[in-house]
This record gives sequence, C-alpha cells and structure tokens, in this order.
Amino acid sequence: MIKVGIVGGTGYTGVELLRLLAQHPAVSVEAITSRSEAGVKVCDMYPNLRGHYDTLTFSEPDARALGALDAVFFATPHGVAHALAGELLEGGTRVIDLSADFRLRDADEWSHWYGQPHGAPALLDEAVYGLPEMHREKIKHARLIAVPGCYPTAVQLGYLPLLEAGLIDPTRLIADCKSGVTGAGRGAKVPSLLAEASESFKAYGASGHRHLPEIRQGLNDMQASPVGLTFVPHLTPMIRGIHATLYSTLTAGADDLQALFEKRYQDEPFVDVLPAGSHPETRSVKGNNTCRIAVHRPQGGDTVVVLSVIDNLVKGASGQAIQNLNLMFGFDEKLGLDAPALMP
Amino acid sequence: MIKVGIVGGTGYTGVELLRLLAQHPAVSVEAITSRSEAGVKVCDMYPNLRGHYDTLTFSEPDARALGALDAVFFATPHGVAHALAGELLEGGTRVIDLSADFRLRDADEWSHWYGQPHGAPALLDEAVYGLPEMHREKIKHARLIAVPGCYPTAVQLGYLPLLEAGLIDPTRLIADCKSGVTGAGRGAKVPSLLAEASESFKAYGASGHRHLPEIRQGLNDMQASPVGLTFVPHLTPMIRGIHATLYSTLTAGADDLQALFEKRYQDEPFVDVLPAGSHPETRSVKGNNTCRIAVHRPQGGDTVVVLSVIDNLVKGASGQAIQNLNLMFGFDEKLGLDAPALMP
Amino acid sequence: MIKVGIVGGTGYTGVELLRLLAQHPAVSVEAITSRSEAGVKVCDMYPNLRGHYDTLTFSEPDARALGALDAVFFATPHGVAHALAGELLEGGTRVIDLSADFRLRDADEWSHWYGQPHGAPALLDEAVYGLPEMHREKIKHARLIAVPGCYPTAVQLGYLPLLEAGLIDPTRLIADCKSGVTGAGRGAKVPSLLAEASESFKAYGASGHRHLPEIRQGLNDMQASPVGLTFVPHLTPMIRGIHATLYSTLTAGADDLQALFEKRYQDEPFVDVLPAGSHPETRSVKGNNTCRIAVHRPQGGDTVVVLSVIDNLVKGASGQAIQNLNLMFGFDEKLGLDAPALMP
Amino acid sequence: MIKVGIVGGTGYTGVELLRLLAQHPAVSVEAITSRSEAGVKVCDMYPNLRGHYDTLTFSEPDARALGALDAVFFATPHGVAHALAGELLEGGTRVIDLSADFRLRDADEWSHWYGQPHGAPALLDEAVYGLPEMHREKIKHARLIAVPGCYPTAVQLGYLPLLEAGLIDPTRLIADCKSGVTGAGRGAKVPSLLAEASESFKAYGASGHRHLPEIRQGLNDMQASPVGLTFVPHLTPMIRGIHATLYSTLTAGADDLQALFEKRYQDEPFVDVLPAGSHPETRSVKGNNTCRIAVHRPQGGDTVVVLSVIDNLVKGASGQAIQNLNLMFGFDEKLGLDAPALMP
Repeated sequence: MIKVGIVGGTGYTGVELLRLLAQHPAVSVEAITSRSEAGVKVCDMYPNLRGHYDTLTFSEPDARALGALDAVFFATPHGVAHALAGELLEGGTRVIDLSADFRLRDADEWSHWYGQPHGAPALLDEAVYGLPEMHREKIKHARLIAVPGCYPTAVQLGYLPLLEAGLIDPTRLIADCKSGVTGAGRGAKVPSLLAEASESFKAYGASGHRHLPEIRQGLNDMQASPVGLTFVPHLTPMIRGIHATLYSTLTAGADDLQALFEKRYQDEPFVDVLPAGSHPETRSVKGNNTCRIAVHRPQGGDTVVVLSVIDNLVKGASGQAIQNLNLMFGFDEKLGLDAPALMP
Repeated sequence: MIKVGIVGGTGYTGVELLRLLAQHPAVSVEAITSRSEAGVKVCDMYPNLRGHYDTLTFSEPDARALGALDAVFFATPHGVAHALAGELLEGGTRVIDLSADFRLRDADEWSHWYGQPHGAPALLDEAVYGLPEMHREKIKHARLIAVPGCYPTAVQLGYLPLLEAGLIDPTRLIADCKSGVTGAGRGAKVPSLLAEASESFKAYGASGHRHLPEIRQGLNDMQASPVGLTFVPHLTPMIRGIHATLYSTLTAGADDLQALFEKRYQDEPFVDVLPAGSHPETRSVKGNNTCRIAVHRPQGGDTVVVLSVIDNLVKGASGQAIQNLNLMFGFDEKLGLDAPALMP
Repeated sequence: MIKVGIVGGTGYTGVELLRLLAQHPAVSVEAITSRSEAGVKVCDMYPNLRGHYDTLTFSEPDARALGALDAVFFATPHGVAHALAGELLEGGTRVIDLSADFRLRDADEWSHWYGQPHGAPALLDEAVYGLPEMHREKIKHARLIAVPGCYPTAVQLGYLPLLEAGLIDPTRLIADCKSGVTGAGRGAKVPSLLAEASESFKAYGASGHRHLPEIRQGLNDMQASPVGLTFVPHLTPMIRGIHATLYSTLTAGADDLQALFEKRYQDEPFVDVLPAGSHPETRSVKGNNTCRIAVHRPQGGDTVVVLSVIDNLVKGASGQAIQNLNLMFGFDEKLGLDAPALMP
Repeated sequence: MIKVGIVGGTGYTGVELLRLLAQHPAVSVEAITSRSEAGVKVCDMYPNLRGHYDTLTFSEPDARALGALDAVFFATPHGVAHALAGELLEGGTRVIDLSADFRLRDADEWSHWYGQPHGAPALLDEAVYGLPEMHREKIKHARLIAVPGCYPTAVQLGYLPLLEAGLIDPTRLIADCKSGVTGAGRGAKVPSLLAEASESFKAYGASGHRHLPEIRQGLNDMQASPVGLTFVPHLTPMIRGIHATLYSTLTAGADDLQALFEKRYQDEPFVDVLPAGSHPETRSVKGNNTCRIAVHRPQGGDTVVVLSVIDNLVKGASGQAIQNLNLMFGFDEKLGLDAPALMP
C-alpha cells in the first residue's frame, strides 16, 4: 500500500482521482490540499464520496507533509507544480503532474503559450511525458511525470500508427476535436452555465489553443519531419468525453489501415481498435480509461479519417495519471482502472 | 464463484447487471438470453463491455442450460418470469426477478393492473419482496426474489422511518416522483427520443401507474392502517436517476426527525441520511447502489417533506438485484457494489 | 408607437424582453441600462439579436433619460426598482417591475423574506399585481405593475378555478414545482454549470423560498380562509420551463373539474386548458406566453392534481410583463406575443 | 393571401413549416397530408400549435385537392415528390420539395446514392436548387424548387466566397459537420433515444453520406475544377443546430478574408458574417433562418477555417423553403422569417 497526496483537489481532475483511487487496492490517499477549502471534508463537497473518504479533509498545502508520501498528484492550474515539484523530488517523493507545467520540453515555448516564465526549467530534462503508449519504459523509471492533456491524448493516439509507419503526409494534419464541458474546469464562468452551453455547439480557440504545441511536440516525436497541424477545439453540450476527428493524406499505397491499427495496439491495455466501419461513441468510455479508435478511408481515396474517443477526465487526465503511477510503482497497469464505462 | 444467467439481457437493466457483475469477484455470468439478438456478442451491442465479456453471446432462452446455474436474473417484461420461474426453482436454481411478476402478493390485483391473468399464482407465497431494508432475513433464505420497482424503492425507503414510528397520517400520503428516461426502457418510442424528451418536463400516468399498488402494499406492511397514497410520476430530461419528494402530515408532537432517520438507517449499507437541511442530487448516486435521503419540516409546521434519490437502474433495479444475490449466497452485502457514483 | 426602456438588461429576463419586443409592432425600445456593460452593444452580448437592435447600446442608468419614455421595465435584482420607481411615476412614466420589489403588499413581510428594509413602502398601495387572469381591470389603469414571479404564476393559475369555486380545502395545499435553470439567473455560480446541473435533479429551498409568501398572498386573494401551503421547488436539467404539480383535497362533492377549468379560462388568451387526461409538457410553451393546464382526479378519489406549465422567462416574466403593457396602453392583449412555441 | 399545402406533415420539417407559417401574413395553410395520421388534428399531435391551427386536420394525400392550391411543400421521405410533382406542376401548382428528390441534377447519381431509380427524370431540367445566395433569380421564376439539405446549406454558404474568388485549392476540402438529433428525423429508432444519444458524441456515415454528392455538385457550380471533398457528419446531443467546420488551403496570397466574406454577403438577408475572431454558436440561430459565419486563418498560415452555423430545421429546411416561396411569389424575402432566435 503506497501513500499518495493530491495538491489542488477541488477541481474535476481532483475529485476524479478520488473516485478512481477509492477502487485502487494498493493506494491510500493520505492528504488533499486546497487553500480555499481547507478544513472542509471532501465528502461534504462531493457527496458521491460519502462512505469512501469520510475523514479526509482539505488541508493547506504543506511541503513537509507531502514530502512524507510516496507520490503526489498535482491537479492544479499551471505554475503550481513548478514551485513545489523540485523540493518533493529531492525528498524522494515522486510527482505526477496533471497540469501543463512539464508537458513542453522547451521552456521558451512554454513561456510563449502560458504568458509567464517557466518556473522550473532545470527539471525539464528529467520530466517524462506520461503517454504510456509512447513512453512506457521511461515512465517505469521516472520520478516526475507530465500527464498529457486531454486533447493531446486523443489526437496522438489517433495519429500514432499512421505517423510511425510513415504512411501520411505530416505537414497537412487536421485535428477537429470536440469536448464536453468539464474540459473547461469547475470555474464559475457564464459561458459554462447550463443555460448557455447546453443546446448549443461552438468552436473556440480556432486561432490558437495551448494544447497545439503539446500535440505538435508529440507528433514530431513519432517521425522525422516537422508536422504541420491545424487544431480546432469545439465545445459540445455534455459533461464528459472528447471526440477527435483526425484527417490526413496517405502518401504511400493501399495499406490495410485496419490491420495497422490493430497490430500497433494489440498489447495496449487501454487502446481499443474497433472493427472496420465503426464509429466510436464518447459514452462508450464514460468514466473509463480506454481510448476507442476507428479508422476510415472515405470512398477509398487518399484521405484517412481517424475517430478517437476518450473520457477527458479519465484517459485525458486522472485515469492516465493512475496508469502512470501503476507503471512507476510496478503494479499491474490496469490496477484500479478496470471498471466498465457507465452506459447508458 | 457462483454461476448466473440473465434472461432478457438486451434492455437497460440487463446491460446494467453486466456492468456491475463485471466487478463482482464471486459471480460469473455464464449465459444471457435474448430471442431477438441470439448469436450477437454482448460487447458488439454494448461497446462499454468490450474487454469484459468478449465471448459472452446472446442465446435463445433454454430452460435446461439455465437450470444448470446457481441463479438466474430475469430482466424481462412482465409475464416472462411467470412462465419459467417454477421450473428453475424446482431444479434448484434460484430466481431473482427484476420484472413485476412477483411483486404483488395478490394475484387478482396483479391481473387488474397488468391486464392479464397471473401466470404463476402458486409461487406467490414463496416469493420474497427484495427490499433488504425491510426483509433482509427473509431474503437470505429465499429461493425466489421479486426485486422492487424503481419508484417503489425510492418511496418506501423515504416513508419507512416515519410509518414504522407511527408519526404520520398514513391516509394522506403524496409521492411526487421524477425519473430519468431510462425508466421508460430501451424501446424505440417517439416520446423517448432526445428530440422529444430533452428540454422538457412532464407528468405521466397521473391517473394511475402500475407502481401504485406495489408502493401501497409496501407501505401497508410498515404499519397497521391502510394507506391512502397519491402517486404522480414525472419524466425529467436526464438518463438516470429518480427523485422522490414525499409529503405527509405529522400526527404526533415535535419529534427529532433527523435523529429518527439516522437511527433507522445507521446500519444500512445502502441508505445514506444526509445532514439536516440537505437536498440530495440524483447525480450523487449515478451508477451507484445508494439511496440518499434528507428530511425537512418546512417552517416548522406539521408537514414533513422527505427527499429520496436513487439511480433507477442500480438501487432501483440491477444493483438491488445483486444486493439480494449477495444476501442469498452469504456474500458481503456490498460485494461488487462498492464503487462511488460518477460525479460530475 | 410607444417608447420604452429596460433597466438591468443583461440578465435573462432583459434579453427575453428584447427578443419579444423585436416582434411587437407598437413598441420601440429606446434605452437599456447596465452599469457593468455600459457602452457595449446589445447584439455583441446577444448575437441572436444581430439584425434587430444593431445600434442599441447598454447605458448607465439615467433617471432623466428614462423619464422621457412612456414605460420602463425593471429586469433587475430586488431593491433597484424601489429606488427609481417613484421618480419615474411622478414624471408620468409607467413602471413595469419584473423584480420582487412590489409583489408583496406588506412591507414588513417583504423585509422579512428579503433581509433588508422595504425601499418604497409609500408605493405599495398603488402597485398592481400583474396577473391579468386575476386583476385585468386594475392593470388597465395601473401606473406601477409588479409582474408576478415565475413559480407564483404557474401555481396561482393552477389553483385559481378550484379556490374561487370553494371546492378544495385551502389549508392543505402542496405545490411541487420544477424549474429549468434559467430560473437561477445568469450569474456565474458553480451549481449552475452544465457540468454540475445537467444529468441531475434536486430540490432546493425546501425549508422556505421567497416565492412562498407571494404565492400565499395570491391564493388568499382567491377566497376567504388563510391558505396553508407547502411549496417545494426543484431544479430540472433544462434551460426553460416550469412544471407545477399541485395537490389539494376536494371538500365538496363530485364536480366536473374539467368543465370548471374550461369555463374559468374560456376567455383567457394565455391560459389553455388541455383535454381531460392530458399531461402538459413544458416544451409546448417554450418561448411562448401560454400557461397550459390539465386537471386530474386520480382513481376518482378526493385528491385533485393540477398540472400547470409555463415558460419561466415568458409567462413567468418577460411575456407577462408585455401582456401587462398591452393592457396598460390599450393594445390587443396578444400583440407581439402570438408566435407558437418552439417545438421540437 | 396564397393558399398552400404540406404533404407529409408529421415530421419535424412539417411541424416547423406550420410553426413558421403561423407568423406569415400572406400564406394560409389549407391542407396537410399524412396517411398514418389522417383524421387527427395537427394541434392534437403538436400542442404548441393549439390556438393557431385549431381546425387543420391531417388528410389522406389527394392530388385533386392539392392541385387547387397555389403551392405545395413536400416534407416527405425521398421518392414521394417524384410521384406527385409532375401532376401538380401541370395543373399550375408550384412545388417546393424539402426532400432529396430533385437536388441532384444527374438521375444516375441520384439512383446510385438512394438505391432506387429516379422517379421523375423529366423534371430535373426544370428543378431549381433553392439556395437563394446562389440562385436567387432562377428561384424567382421557378415552378419546382429542390430545397437544399441541411448540411449542404451550411457547407456551401461557408465555402462560397472562397471558391468564387478562386482563393483555395478545391481538390482538398474537408467539411467536419455536427448536427443536432432532429437531423435524424422523428422516426422511433433506438440510437435516437435520449438515453442513447444524450451525453455522447459520435461520427456517422464517415465512409459516405447522401449529402456528399449534393454538396459536391454545389461546390462544383462555384468554380471550374472538380472539387475533392471529405465530409464527415457527427451527431451532437442537442435538438437543433448544425455547425460546419470547413478546412481548405489558400492557393493565393494574403487576402483579407474577413472583407471578402463581408462583401460577398453584405446584401444577403439571411447570412450574417460575424466580426473577425468570432466563434458562432448554434444557439444564436435556434428557430431562426440565419446562417452565421466566421472565418479564421490559424497562426496566419495557409489553412483557412470557416465556421458556419444554421438551424437545421429552419435555414436547413423549412425556413429556407419559405424563403424560396417568398421569392417565387414576389413577397419580401424576409416575410414571416423575421423573429430573433430563441436564446437562451
């Protein structure tokens, strides 16, 4: 039984960590921090956790207390993990950061997109990008994990087999992505109200979104040429789920794309390639850590369309964080992540 | 490890049994029947089950095959369990019926509300009404369980402490209930379309609903006088969840109703009395077997308002069925039912 | 063509006034105020109004400018109309207040429920409660209208025929009401987020809601005895709509309740009594000023169940305000309010 | 006042015609046909129409009765207008067909996509494709209108300025489209149930959808080269609305795309180009005949992203049909179509 803590536990990724870890047989949540809610019991804020964490209470962040734990999750806005990760790592506590703080390897690019200096550039060399389907071996030995963003997870897993195999033109990629509203976080903002966001659909950030450089970096790692990527995120009126529709152009001949995908992911516990002709639904992964994928080639032409769905709070955040923890601590990769999606 | 089967597994209670049983460490699903889908793999119909039941296939109902199992769930329309239960019981297979077939003890009343003769009146004496909070000991020794309906579960658990204590007038009960649309089943009907049922709210069956006699029978079992009950169900635009708002009039003096509820349910694993002043949300039990309850006395008058929420597919159907199975087979009552609700 | 202004136009009732008045042939909106949005064009905030109010801009409230208009709507939080109404009335501008400021005739009771002194008690005698089905003649000659709240409108119209006819016991009324989330306004609050409020149902204010004294006052006006009312509001996951389910006990014999309702409302342009056995859906009045009503007597007993639906932003606020304006200025009562509901 | 009829009025485009025509001052609906509902009053099926069409009753289709009208709308599945249009046109009744029957000019292509022979190839030369922004003058003199499909409307209006100006490569167009569920019609199908389609997002028809050849034909009409188009439709959990996200590659230099769009649509009553940097929401056109468009050029590169939204039942069907009727009969093009969208 390892002991973990959660920094910044009041948001959706924090409560999702609690929900999932309640079913994890080898992890005990010993601390959860929140400046704004210090002193409040987590089950008073999240009644679904009544009976599961009846004594766990939000506390002020305290580096000493966190340093006594085996691992700490950061479920915080960007910038927070920068300030605390170094001290925790020095003390031997492993850090699994769900924020964007260590996702980009280039501190200057991070500064450009996040509008502030990078707070811990010395740790960038050590940080491992926590996409197990790309970096499983590194993750096993990592001390500091940058858990991928939600859109980047869905997009990278969709393009991975094609780019690794060198079958598509990497300079003309189009990722049209749709997210449920938990992707916008738990902040009280008018556009996220049910009265504003339901019964409507819209794009946002069409001119540039912070997940763009992260996706680009990940796709560049898959092959030699610099990718050209257009990424347009959209808001869809539902709570959870991301659907990525990925367009690219075949450069080589008539490969069996279905077989390519099935082979690439045959040993992956959390990537499920659907039968040819399928259209994955986001609800098929609701509450679950799986990415379901289908690949199409409309009218047999040279355009490939990949459909990739995840739960943004699970494989796109808290579930993937636990998958990383399982790898880091030598547990079965699926431990605590084995419940089927909630459907209907 | 006991072996179970599911008759009529294509509906929402069937797939919910599969979802929940996938996490049950002591149960193996050996058979699932459906005339219409015989030969189809369950994971082709329900992609959330991919990776969990990869070989389980719908089969034609076959009394011999079912008779080789330890227990059989009926997740069927009314009338089906009537025809098969007797033979299974004779062969030593226990029957847990999620339909209405054995809920009413009076065959004539059953005929009146269901518009056809009762198909197995000889079994009525033996059938146990599977509400553990009322009939736990009988359930432990039962061979045939009538799993309560969804509305009846929420309503009975809400009134139970008040009626047992004799504090309210049983002749003027009003149960105003609201259900998500899975309560209407998986049938393809125009009023259940998203385009018809979302962004709208309506009552139905105001003049008489089949759950009325079941609730009445249950409330009568709690005290001596015949109850007078007005029951109005409503459809609310969401997938899962029932909210019962229960009105009654205090006949005795100023009892501490909060303490009454807390004491009555202190040892119940699946009834959670919220702190005074609370308003339970249906989402706090989404996918979960708990009934959460709050009790109010507006303006300190003699009207009591009880708010009771369940997931209609879990505590209102499949979860309660498994809770019964756990009791019947001597397992921990919470086995396989311990995951927190999905929230948000 | 009369000239009107709107004070506090950024909320949902404000934009709904603009939407409806865009179709009103005899009204011109000359001013709309908002401290927070002064200088912003209304069509930049509400893109549905592009092409309809292309020059109308939010301005700072200015009593002189408002005083030059024929009528001013207040779509403000409580307390604002108190401060401005008197000056406007003196200058000859009629005031139609959609807030709670003049709904209760008793200043002390207002203070009790709103937690502050009443700001304009001298105007209470003059204020007319703007429920045309009760006070049409007074409205025609009024200078100051208190537009009824949304719940009070649905509840009063549902009980009106029964109480006027003296058929039910007024001391045991139960109003179980359900509202879409626009009823909570456009404020940025966590519980109103789509991620929190959708796929869930809950009661709120079970121990006391500010609409309770307003409803009680209205029901008292319908007959001689003081009413006893239990009112429990609920939040339902949809944008618009209120459904009131109203319970009462018949004191007299077997009247034809259907005929009673049809007769009482036969000349009302905005109350529609559905055929016997109906269940009104809130979507049938989406965007529309009608209240649709059905009356039931379950199992022929002495309990009457009235089902009453309105659009909380139309008949429950802005549409009713315009209906009042039509009466005050001698227009056809339906002018500008004649479009069918949006369905589906 | 002209007299019109509707063939096949029970579906969503039929009821939407009724809703919109209730506000049209120059049109009287004299007949509405439905084999399945003959004898039923429309307001019994659609309670939002109570008070608007209190005597209009569904009738059996009768060519003689329809032939006495000025115009007939077909709101039918494909194949029905083929059978009746010719006779009506001969008798002098104009035909506005909302189905797919006359959208494709090539009868063979129609047969290929619809799996049956074209039933009225002789009328194809005469049929005018009813997209006023492309064919306004022809529409004015047409006797037979093929109202464009919903996706084709949103896509064509989005690409029109770019293709007419020859600024983009027509051989690599990608239209990623999202529709509310009314696009699937009012048929009782399991995947359209609220319990199945809400809280989920999915693509469908990725390998080929019947709107593909229609869009291709329309885009080919805008410029000389044959277009290459990938079209992927998706289902989004809401009632109404289409959002088209349109990708293309600039071939020429750095044009001012915003100015191009504004100029092209400056005189169009139902196309609204939003300010630079905008993201149109589908709710901004709910119930309304406008197409709102924004154009983006992410990171200043050579990819153009056009965002185009319509209400699939209005500009994508019934509203556009009335816009065509207005042009054909010399009315103001906006007559009866002037109400703002319902928002929130």
